[in-house]
Amino acid sequence: MKSTMMDHPLSTQMIFDRGERLFGASRVVSFDGTTTHTRSFAETARRARQLACALAAIGLPPGEPVATYCWNSPAHLEAYLAVPAMGAVLHTLNVRLPAEQIRYIMNHAADRALIVDAVLLPAIAPILSECPSLGHVVVIGDAPQAIAGFAGMMHAYEDLIARAAPMTAWPTLVETDAAAICYTSGTTGLPKGVVYSHRSVYLHSLASMAADTFAISNRDRILMVPPMFHANAWGMPYSGWLAGSDLILPGPHLQSAHLVHLIAQERPTLMAAVPTILNDLLQAHAGAPLDLGSFRTIVSGGSAVSASLIERVKAAWGVDVVQGWGMTETSPMCVLSFPPRETGPEGETPWRAKAGRPVPGMHVRIVDETDHPLPEDGKAMGHLQLRGPWVTGGYLHEAPEDSRLTADGWLRTGDVGRIDTLGFVEVTDRAKDLIKSGGEWISSADLENGIAALPGVAEAAVFAIPDPRWEERPLAVVVMAAGAELVPAALRAGLRERFARFMIPEYWAPADFIPRTSVGKFDKKTLREQFDAGGMTVVVETGFTLGD
Amino acid sequence: MKSTMMDHPLSTQMIFDRGERLFGASRVVSFDGTTTHTRSFAETARRARQLACALAAIGLPPGEPVATYCWNSPAHLEAYLAVPAMGAVLHTLNVRLPAEQIRYIMNHAADRALIVDAVLLPAIAPILSECPSLGHVVVIGDAPQAIAGFAGMMHAYEDLIARAAPMTAWPTLVETDAAAICYTSGTTGLPKGVVYSHRSVYLHSLASMAADTFAISNRDRILMVPPMFHANAWGMPYSGWLAGSDLILPGPHLQSAHLVHLIAQERPTLMAAVPTILNDLLQAHAGAPLDLGSFRTIVSGGSAVSASLIERVKAAWGVDVVQGWGMTETSPMCVLSFPPRETGPEGETPWRAKAGRPVPGMHVRIVDETDHPLPEDGKAMGHLQLRGPWVTGGYLHEAPEDSRLTADGWLRTGDVGRIDTLGFVEVTDRAKDLIKSGGEWISSADLENGIAALPGVAEAAVFAIPDPRWEERPLAVVVMAAGAELVPAALRAGLRERFARFMIPEYWAPADFIPRTSVGKFDKKTLREQFDAGGMTVVVETGFTLGD
Repeated sequence: MKSTMMDHPLSTQMIFDRGERLFGASRVVSFDGTTTHTRSFAETARRARQLACALAAIGLPPGEPVATYCWNSPAHLEAYLAVPAMGAVLHTLNVRLPAEQIRYIMNHAADRALIVDAVLLPAIAPILSECPSLGHVVVIGDAPQAIAGFAGMMHAYEDLIARAAPMTAWPTLVETDAAAICYTSGTTGLPKGVVYSHRSVYLHSLASMAADTFAISNRDRILMVPPMFHANAWGMPYSGWLAGSDLILPGPHLQSAHLVHLIAQERPTLMAAVPTILNDLLQAHAGAPLDLGSFRTIVSGGSAVSASLIERVKAAWGVDVVQGWGMTETSPMCVLSFPPRETGPEGETPWRAKAGRPVPGMHVRIVDETDHPLPEDGKAMGHLQLRGPWVTGGYLHEAPEDSRLTADGWLRTGDVGRIDTLGFVEVTDRAKDLIKSGGEWISSADLENGIAALPGVAEAAVFAIPDPRWEERPLAVVVMAAGAELVPAALRAGLRERFARFMIPEYWAPADFIPRTSVGKFDKKTLREQFDAGGMTVVVETGFTLGD
Repeated sequence: MKSTMMDHPLSTQMIFDRGERLFGASRVVSFDGTTTHTRSFAETARRARQLACALAAIGLPPGEPVATYCWNSPAHLEAYLAVPAMGAVLHTLNVRLPAEQIRYIMNHAADRALIVDAVLLPAIAPILSECPSLGHVVVIGDAPQAIAGFAGMMHAYEDLIARAAPMTAWPTLVETDAAAICYTSGTTGLPKGVVYSHRSVYLHSLASMAADTFAISNRDRILMVPPMFHANAWGMPYSGWLAGSDLILPGPHLQSAHLVHLIAQERPTLMAAVPTILNDLLQAHAGAPLDLGSFRTIVSGGSAVSASLIERVKAAWGVDVVQGWGMTETSPMCVLSFPPRETGPEGETPWRAKAGRPVPGMHVRIVDETDHPLPEDGKAMGHLQLRGPWVTGGYLHEAPEDSRLTADGWLRTGDVGRIDTLGFVEVTDRAKDLIKSGGEWISSADLENGIAALPGVAEAAVFAIPDPRWEERPLAVVVMAAGAELVPAALRAGLRERFARFMIPEYWAPADFIPRTSVGKFDKKTLREQFDAGGMTVVVETGFTLGD
């Protein structure tokens, strides 16, 4: 029997049109580090329609990628709206990557045009002449300076828009057409392109409005802290526009002093942020009390969010932290840590400290080395694999044999974890960050959380180093809080309640800071290199045996 | 450029599996009129998997319809879950229809099996032998009595389940495959079958979780008042299961005394109900105060929800009513009346008294007689047309020329209304219920609301009668509250502030009650027949001229 339902493709055009039609008075707020500037959704939509016509007028072919190299700004949002709706593909470049990687990525994607913040142009200008596909450079802000090889192809964003009429009719699309590209940050190997479809962006945005996910609504004022070049800022430019939320865009002003100012002035209700941002805000709060009470929720992720961080945010401002785990490959919303109805006497924090449960549409499993599913009992640890309508099944221009899909169509995440009987996922490690000691796995993430929760510790990164007896042992790189001293015996003693003896590190390295990747994760590659080069002072705690 | 996203079909299997896997401890509560009985989602899912195997075992071919003729019960929910997931099609029959219409509908759909409540079997048994496609009858409750022509094909639901193993693997489906059928109630012409797809059911369920729609979540306890044979009970069996809400099923016990008991005992957080149910509860409350404070929201629709009803519910229990307008053709969620951010000094009620704004995914427009779009200025009145991924584009076994689609793919609703600048829809009438008086349209729904808000009036139905001078004039059939008397001059005076003179009825008919259709709407067909047959006492208010 055939359904009688309409064939109605899911697309970013539906997102564009709904925000424009129903929520013309919602606001896009930008921040120059001192004051804010506001533009309505109606005006933003009109400008985006002008941008679409302008890009068509300079000869952008349909279906081709337009790169952006921008902070979170109104013009970047206009590109988010205009580029996919007009049938082109939005390619957000990570401004924190070295220019050499940007060159590789732009050539790999064959970008046809580039929209770039004037302040960021110097960083990228030198490599643009090495991108043969690139036809046009559109500069937001100051009048563009000439770049060799781009005579007559440099445009000032505002001039371009001012000369264009709004595009009034969108082209007809197929919902599986490409809408946007984001490259993985590439901590191993070359960066790889994930290509979102109109369908996947729409479904991700709709799912982001669910009461048990981000619950994004017309009443929200979203402080958009995650960069719009990183997994679509957790999808919030699209979900917030679809819902008619106010969108508060901090530009490059992500230092806590700036955020504090912006929060006080704009009273946002929702923010997504990596734990580092929350730590920064808590530190500022310790100095001079902040009022973050306008937030109904703070979503955090990108790296593990510890129970102590969740409790400190709750104690400081009465705000619940919802942890999430996702990837560029998952658009990125995947699992979220809402406490279940079955919350026990320990309260909500233990649940919030897990990665969470799959949002509607997502499927997660753990498997052994042969892709055979493992029990979901909260004990078995295995490789995490994913399926869902906004999960990538491959990478741009990737040979089929490089696919990270299993034979039965699940994505290998490269992460390792457990799933409990209620479906809560705990991500214990990147597979490559696991420590195999005497035949047993030790989770570096578990150790990092455990050490960070000890008195006097600011943060800790753990990785495997070679050990003559155990093959591998954990090395803990520890940053102590101001005035505290690293005493390995005391830290070891503090870990005994929570960790098996064999898991507790005997190798300790004090550090002033822990290097991070461009997306804010511990940069263990750099740490390993430091260790291998002998550039790390390691204290070995003796006076015990591993078997004690 | 091709997207790299997985091809992951949207289906009711995803709904089934999520509720089962993540929310095994959520509850399905049934009510026998006195006490409640609880079964977990885990147990319900197991029984549904057994039902799937049992239906396969009795020889149900894939893709064929299985009819249900049931109240809102756990077994009905099990059929909702099992039938589409196993690749068959759930066909919910309206138990309030005459047997003759049921016979027509079952033959039109070519139902292969029937699941029926034992108490309802006598009503339907006589026509079953006239349904040649029907192979099996499964009876819920008492042991089935023999029916002529069904020897060996009558099954007791519990026996059937007890003998079957749970179906562990679902068949592979295409997302546009049929999942469920619901026939329109057919106030004009023959009933027509709307066939929902797996995709449309999934999208409707996901959209029902959005914060600005029903916001259905794991924290909810849904009192499922709308019959599951009527537009899938507003989709709540699926959306509630997807979200892990507790589902409270009142069976046939919808009288306010029963509902009051159930609400007191189960403390539901969400209910959808037609205005009649709310009126009944308010009337009970006037006698002996009820506590409905457990509701976070009551969704109401099916017929227009007046401002006064919304205010009385808020005053009585502090609960917000969210009005909705939808149709069997729209799954049914279409527009919902959340007040906008721009709520003015008049407060929220004027917004809640409108039909509402389109939920994400839905598109609404008004057009003239030639399908040309009209201005959305809150003034122009036109024919309402719809598009969206869960809107029907036709009817089962319908000839293309009978389609209600426009040339550009919009569904003609048969309703008439306005759309304002913020996108709020007001449904003023069924096109056939409009009154054309002296060349001007008069909205019968506007008049009904206006009259019902006058002191002493319980409810009012308005329809067109022939008039020698004006072609048509409105006749108001009015039920007065106990002790109040119908004084046409007083009612006319009360309407003057809100209505143009030509809109105010001069024809008035007192009545003890207003007949309603099987889905609770005013049955104007019956009223017109009463009037045509001279069976209505009509008072004509004189002493004025229409031009005064």
